[in-house]
Amino acid sequence: MRKMTKITLDEREMPKQWYNIAADLPGPVNPPLGPDGKPIGPEMLAPVFPMNLIEQEVSTQRWIDIPEKVLEILYLWRPTPLVRAYRLEEAIGTPARIYYKNESISPAGSHKPNTAVAQAYYNKAFGIKRLTTETGAGQWGSALAFATSLLGMECRVYMVRVSFDQKPYRKMMMRTWGADCVASPSNETQAGRDILAEQPDTPGSLGIAISEAIEAAVTDPSGETRYSLGSVLNHVMLHQTIIGLETKKQLEKINEKKVDVVIGCAGGGSNFAGLSFPFISDKINGADIDVIAVEPASCPTLTRAPYSYDHGDVARMTPLLAMYSLGHTFVPPPIHAGGLRYHGMSPLVSHTLRHGLIRAEAIHQLECYDAAVLFSRTEGIIPAPESSHAVASVIREANRAKEEGKEKVIVFNLSGHGLMDLVGYDKFFKGELSDYALPQTDLEKYTEILRAYPDPL
Amino acid sequence: MRKMTKITLDEREMPKQWYNIAADLPGPVNPPLGPDGKPIGPEMLAPVFPMNLIEQEVSTQRWIDIPEKVLEILYLWRPTPLVRAYRLEEAIGTPARIYYKNESISPAGSHKPNTAVAQAYYNKAFGIKRLTTETGAGQWGSALAFATSLLGMECRVYMVRVSFDQKPYRKMMMRTWGADCVASPSNETQAGRDILAEQPDTPGSLGIAISEAIEAAVTDPSGETRYSLGSVLNHVMLHQTIIGLETKKQLEKINEKKVDVVIGCAGGGSNFAGLSFPFISDKINGADIDVIAVEPASCPTLTRAPYSYDHGDVARMTPLLAMYSLGHTFVPPPIHAGGLRYHGMSPLVSHTLRHGLIRAEAIHQLECYDAAVLFSRTEGIIPAPESSHAVASVIREANRAKEEGKEKVIVFNLSGHGLMDLVGYDKFFKGELSDYALPQTDLEKYTEILRAYPDPL
Repeated sequence: MRKMTKITLDEREMPKQWYNIAADLPGPVNPPLGPDGKPIGPEMLAPVFPMNLIEQEVSTQRWIDIPEKVLEILYLWRPTPLVRAYRLEEAIGTPARIYYKNESISPAGSHKPNTAVAQAYYNKAFGIKRLTTETGAGQWGSALAFATSLLGMECRVYMVRVSFDQKPYRKMMMRTWGADCVASPSNETQAGRDILAEQPDTPGSLGIAISEAIEAAVTDPSGETRYSLGSVLNHVMLHQTIIGLETKKQLEKINEKKVDVVIGCAGGGSNFAGLSFPFISDKINGADIDVIAVEPASCPTLTRAPYSYDHGDVARMTPLLAMYSLGHTFVPPPIHAGGLRYHGMSPLVSHTLRHGLIRAEAIHQLECYDAAVLFSRTEGIIPAPESSHAVASVIREANRAKEEGKEKVIVFNLSGHGLMDLVGYDKFFKGELSDYALPQTDLEKYTEILRAYPDPL
Repeated sequence: MRKMTKITLDEREMPKQWYNIAADLPGPVNPPLGPDGKPIGPEMLAPVFPMNLIEQEVSTQRWIDIPEKVLEILYLWRPTPLVRAYRLEEAIGTPARIYYKNESISPAGSHKPNTAVAQAYYNKAFGIKRLTTETGAGQWGSALAFATSLLGMECRVYMVRVSFDQKPYRKMMMRTWGADCVASPSNETQAGRDILAEQPDTPGSLGIAISEAIEAAVTDPSGETRYSLGSVLNHVMLHQTIIGLETKKQLEKINEKKVDVVIGCAGGGSNFAGLSFPFISDKINGADIDVIAVEPASCPTLTRAPYSYDHGDVARMTPLLAMYSLGHTFVPPPIHAGGLRYHGMSPLVSHTLRHGLIRAEAIHQLECYDAAVLFSRTEGIIPAPESSHAVASVIREANRAKEEGKEKVIVFNLSGHGLMDLVGYDKFFKGELSDYALPQTDLEKYTEILRAYPDPL
């Protein structure tokens, strides 16, 4: 008998706790370091984040309650459906059963509101009235604009200039939710002005935008502003685990007992961690699961960068984080998956790779667009360019299952829709997009600076 | 105890039949007339529509089975959630309980795929390989592109030139689903060439686009092309009733026994009919429900136009339909709710108004944008400009309930999201939008031509 296409949960079935993988990881997790090369204390982060989030950042408690007020907002679109991709399977002719977690139905169109709502809530509970942040393609900035709007807070977003110009609708979206969005680098911060003086035509980068957003938060004399980050940090990964926790419940509901492959795209790591960490928990306990983080071949953090201490931003305002990093001055080629154009990677995700709990795959942009078009024309949803990397990897795995004649179960995260990113599709159809080769010597030039930092190994 | 925010159904609970209100309507329904003023037979429509849809168009059978293949595609996003708008209620301070049916989560972003999938399916079952249609703002063209893509058919969309130029994302969306979208008037049809010869710089109109789409269908020598319409006709209303049927099940599920007010915006009538017809069925059987169709004050078909026979298009290629009509040459002011800029109205919706089963309300654009911004900032979803008319009416009713101190239950259709229409919001925030007064003498000028047609009363 045909199983259901779409597995839904009602809100009484939604997980009421987040899963903290820090409780279960093998080996010591390298702590963030301050400018003196020593582990930083919570007080050093206090100008940037509220103390309740800092506590989550360093927590090793396995399960953390989701506040009722956060649940109330998440209920507007969660639990999200898990969908069996029958039509994609047929198009590939694979014996694999493919499921996607549809995070694209959130009001902001991606998984990002899962942590945006939580972060806005904790900040507000701490007395903060205003949040600043950066955004690449705009998914994160939109999500925080959405969250602060529903919680009655102010929000200012520094958007990487190349995306700001490519995607004007994003700014309008944030404005509708009451947030301000400015192109980065901007003239509003010292960090922005410094970079504009040196490179007036820079396309910007997430690293630069982060520096501006942090500066804007810590220099607000009222003390009522904090900074919010949409990926990379431990508490962000934590908030996203609701994705994987729901997915496991949904698979249970249809009696799908064994998952073989779990796939997510990875820029800073949050949608990948959100889906995969609850499965990696099973893997730590002996389950045989192939967990794949997919990144752009033009920003190959997990596949070609060293594991090192590095800053999360260009202006070196963040502590040193132990992670795979291309070096904080690396400016990725202008691929359309703006959310994956990040030099570093979540320390927790980096840790799982270093310990062999996951593997990483780098895919070029054109293969991703091909995959996205096939997905659009079979499953109907136009994927975000970021999510198209997961789709491309799923198609590779489904073809492998076909060659091997194996009935594998593949689960992936459709982290967002591409309705705000259609210009990329248009250029793809016109043949105006290309892949970008990154010679090893180029990468070495950027990662050279990492030698100056402590070695985490 | 707080009730659930979001009431979901799993796909086993989805209605398996559409509801045909023609079986229950009081009074005789006026038939479409041919050029000779006599009721047309099915054979006259055969070059335009496949016979299986023509049979649905004239059916008076109360329940019509939804084909399994149609259900399989609808399952990708249906049943859609019914959401309790707690946060909007709180913002208004109303004792009313407000629920919205969230049709915005379909892959195309609106309710339109409900009929697009059904129409594509019936055409394909009849041996048709290619569909043509027109689109104004683009919601309908996108939905048909989505549906034909999943059914492996070709699709050509004639998009009003001014919208084609103003909303380039819509064209890219259709292209991603494999459909061709051309600006209308085009050089591809005689109708288009004639108009271009006379007015090379014309911005185009829905009437011209309909003429081109019909011509392209009926002149295809292979006989494998038909035309598809996204609203107005009986079979379109039928396919949309799944919205209201699901809603009734969802209200039952939370034991919400009595609905007081049902609200939908109305352009051609399809999302309004989809939600309201199953409730009007109860009303015909004695239930006390206030059913409100909301239209733009600048295109006041239901509130200020006569009930008359008129053509559905400017070029008078369609049969004469009995409906409220502003006259087929009426050109509505350029409000951003492009989907509501239609001179006529579904004959079935018109019939329910004439018989007092519904009432109509006209609201100006600025009040609708105000309402949409409040909805965006409380419930999180940015409404399509069309849907914002329903939101504005809901706010009026919720305020009335507050004044009267009544615990009313209000249900409305959030027919689509506004992520492709953010330019309208941008202009609203910049103060560049205005309301448009329509002097009675202007309306009389347009409706004068209706005197030449048979009187349906």
